[in-house]
Amino acid sequence: MSLITLQTDFGTRDAFVAAMKAVILRIAPGTQLLDISHEIPPFDLRSPGLNWLGLFDYCPPGTIHIGVIDPGVGTAREIVLACIREQWFLAPDNGLLTPLLETYGNPTQAYRVEPGVWTAPHPHPTFHGRDIFAPVAAHLALGQEASGAGPSRDTTTLNKYAWPKPEVATGQVNGQILYADRFGNLWSNIRFVDLTKAGIVPNAARITIGDREIVGISPSYGQTVDAVVSVVNSIGYIEVAVVQGNALEILGLGIDTPITIRA
Amino acid sequence: MSLITLQTDFGTRDAFVAAMKAVILRIAPGTQLLDISHEIPPFDLRSPGLNWLGLFDYCPPGTIHIGVIDPGVGTAREIVLACIREQWFLAPDNGLLTPLLETYGNPTQAYRVEPGVWTAPHPHPTFHGRDIFAPVAAHLALGQEASGAGPSRDTTTLNKYAWPKPEVATGQVNGQILYADRFGNLWSNIRFVDLTKAGIVPNAARITIGDREIVGISPSYGQTVDAVVSVVNSIGYIEVAVVQGNALEILGLGIDTPITIRA
Amino acid sequence: MSLITLQTDFGTRDAFVAAMKAVILRIAPGTQLLDISHEIPPFDLRSPGLNWLGLFDYCPPGTIHIGVIDPGVGTAREIVLACIREQWFLAPDNGLLTPLLETYGNPTQAYRVEPGVWTAPHPHPTFHGRDIFAPVAAHLALGQEASGAGPSRDTTTLNKYAWPKPEVATGQVNGQILYADRFGNLWSNIRFVDLTKAGIVPNAARITIGDREIVGISPSYGQTVDAVVSVVNSIGYIEVAVVQGNALEILGLGIDTPITIRA
Repeated sequence: MSLITLQTDFGTRDAFVAAMKAVILRIAPGTQLLDISHEIPPFDLRSPGLNWLGLFDYCPPGTIHIGVIDPGVGTAREIVLACIREQWFLAPDNGLLTPLLETYGNPTQAYRVEPGVWTAPHPHPTFHGRDIFAPVAAHLALGQEASGAGPSRDTTTLNKYAWPKPEVATGQVNGQILYADRFGNLWSNIRFVDLTKAGIVPNAARITIGDREIVGISPSYGQTVDAVVSVVNSIGYIEVAVVQGNALEILGLGIDTPITIRA
Repeated sequence: MSLITLQTDFGTRDAFVAAMKAVILRIAPGTQLLDISHEIPPFDLRSPGLNWLGLFDYCPPGTIHIGVIDPGVGTAREIVLACIREQWFLAPDNGLLTPLLETYGNPTQAYRVEPGVWTAPHPHPTFHGRDIFAPVAAHLALGQEASGAGPSRDTTTLNKYAWPKPEVATGQVNGQILYADRFGNLWSNIRFVDLTKAGIVPNAARITIGDREIVGISPSYGQTVDAVVSVVNSIGYIEVAVVQGNALEILGLGIDTPITIRA
Repeated sequence: MSLITLQTDFGTRDAFVAAMKAVILRIAPGTQLLDISHEIPPFDLRSPGLNWLGLFDYCPPGTIHIGVIDPGVGTAREIVLACIREQWFLAPDNGLLTPLLETYGNPTQAYRVEPGVWTAPHPHPTFHGRDIFAPVAAHLALGQEASGAGPSRDTTTLNKYAWPKPEVATGQVNGQILYADRFGNLWSNIRFVDLTKAGIVPNAARITIGDREIVGISPSYGQTVDAVVSVVNSIGYIEVAVVQGNALEILGLGIDTPITIRA
C-alpha cells in the first residue's frame, strides 16, 4: 500500500486533519500516513510547494501527496491529480504545484478529480479535504487506477502563480528571499547550480542582502555564534542565516527582500 | 487490530503523549494511532466532545477513542469506558462525553475502569493517561473483552455538563456560539436540521449576531474576500465566517455570544 | 521491525521532520514512528534528555531513539550510537544523553557514526538528520548490526554537560528547578528516592521555593483550585504546581530556581 503524505493549513488544534485520516483509514486500513505540515499559514499558496520540492524525492515511488490549502473550496475551482516523477499530487488547481511544475515541467499525467464512486455522495462544500481528497487518496493507496478519480485533463494547463526566478548573468545572480524557516533562516530563490552557471566561485562569492555583505558560501553553519553566514540549504538553495540565532528577527529582513550574489 | 485515537490537553512539547503511545505500542505493537488533538486548552471540557462529535462517524467500527482532559486525575473521579454506535470512548467521568450523549443518547454499554491486570500495578496518581488509559486501550485494541477494564456500570448516570441546546420555534431559532476553530470561524449550537424544524428557508434566513445581520445560509464560503457569511459547517452546525479572514478577531465576538436565525 | 522515536528542535511547520521520516520509510517501509517532541527550543540540550529519561523505559526493547538537536551540525562534532538498557540512542555527541548517562551510567555499547553504505553518499552539511540519522536508524530498524553504523568507540568518554545533582543530607535536600512543562508545573532535580535517603517523611516535608513554603508532598494535584502544591511527578521527581493553574507564571519562578526540602 502506498504512503500518503498530508499538508494543510488546518492546524492541529481542531479535528479537521484527524477527520481526513479517519476517512483514509476506514477505506484503506493500515495505510501509512506522513504529516508534512498542518501549520501552513491560512491560505498561503507558496510554502506548501516548497515543502514538497524539498521532500518528495526522498519518498518511496508511488507516494500520494495531499495538499489542502484551498480558499476556493466549494467554488468552481478544480481539484487536480497529477503525476510528477512517479509520485501523485492531489491538490486544488490553484497554483499549489507551481514550484514543482517550474522545476520539473508539466506532469506526465493529470486528472480532473470529480465526486464519484470513490467519494462521499454529497461532498460537504466547505470540507473537500475529508469528502473528496481523503477518499481519492485512499483508493489510490489501495492500488486502484488513477483514472477512477475523474477524467483525464490537459497536463499543460495547470494553474501556476508567478514564480520568482532569479536572473542569472555572468558573474552575478539577482534573486530574492522566498521563505523563512522555523530557525529564521532566510531561503533565497537562488540555487547552488545558478552560481555555477554564472561562473561564481562559492568560496569567494559576495552576497549582498539589505545593507549586509557576506563573503563566501560556507559549507555549514559553523560554530561562530551570531555570525551572519550564507550556506547552501538542504534542498539546494542559497540561504542566509545567523549562527544559533534567528536571521529573520535579527536582520529584520523578510520574504521578497532582494539578494544579489557576485563573483 | 483496532484504531486508537488520542485527544489530550498535554500539548506536543513534552513527552506525555509519547509516553502514552509507547505504552500502547509495547502492549499492542503495530496498532495504528490517530491524533485528534493535543492542543485542547488545559482543562477545557467542551471542545474535545465537539471534536469527537465531528469525527467519530468517519472512523472504522470498533475504534477506541482516548480522551485525557482530566483536572481531577488522582482524585475520586471515575474513569469510564462507554460504547456509543459501536465505538469505544475511554475518558474521565467528568462530562467529556456530553456532546455525544446529548446527540446519541446513553451508551449501549459502560464500564467503570479500575486498575487491574491490564494496567500498571500502581498507577501514578498524576498520570493516569500513561498508566491506565493507554494500557486499557491497548488491550481493547488487541481484541480483549471490554469487561476486562472493570465492572459494568449504569449507562444512564454518566456525568454531563449543561449543554446549551438551541430554542427552536416556528420561524425562529435562538442559539449561541459554541466554538471558534483555527480559522476563527464561529460555530453555533444551531444545526441545519433545526432550521428545517422551524420552517426556515436557508436561502432567505436572517442570521443576527452581535449588531450584524447576515441574509441567507451560503452553500460555501465563496470568493468575496472579507464578506461576513453564514454556512453549514462540516459537522452540520451553522457557523459565521469571514471569507479568507478570521471572524473571531474581526467581529470581536466570542464563545457564548447569542445568535438568532429567523425566517 | 523496531520502533523509531524522533526528537528534534525542527518544529512542525517546515518539512524537516517529514524529510527524515520519508528517508526512513523508503528504506524500511512500514516502520512505526513515534514523535516525542519537535518543539524542543532551538539548540536546547537539556529537555530532550529529560524527555527520554521519562519515556524510554515504557518503549519496547530494541527501540531506536533519534535526537537531533545539533547546533554543531556539519562541524567536527561526532554522532554517537549508544546502547542503554537494550535501547538505542542516536544523537550528536554534544551532551544530549547526559540525563541518561547520569542516571544509568555509561552505555553498554557505543559506535561513532560515520557516512557509509547506509547513509547518503554526500551528507548535506546542514541536514545530518535526513542524510545520516534517518538512514542509520532505518537500517537498525531492519535488524542490521549496529556495527554497520561505524566503528566501535569508548563507552566512557561521551560528552556530558554539568548535570545539577541535588545535595542530600540527613533531614535536608537542596536542589533546583530543572524544567517547566506545558502546564507550567516546575520539575525539580530532587527525586522521591532522595527524600527517603535523607530520612524525610513525605507527608511532613517542608518544601521551600522562592518565598513560599509548602508543607507535605501531596499524592495528587487534588481539587483545591489555585492551591500551590508539591507532588511526585510522573517520572519520579518532586515538582511544584498550582492546581489547575500555571505555576511558572503564577509564582514567577523559573528554571534554576533553588528548592529545599526539609524534614
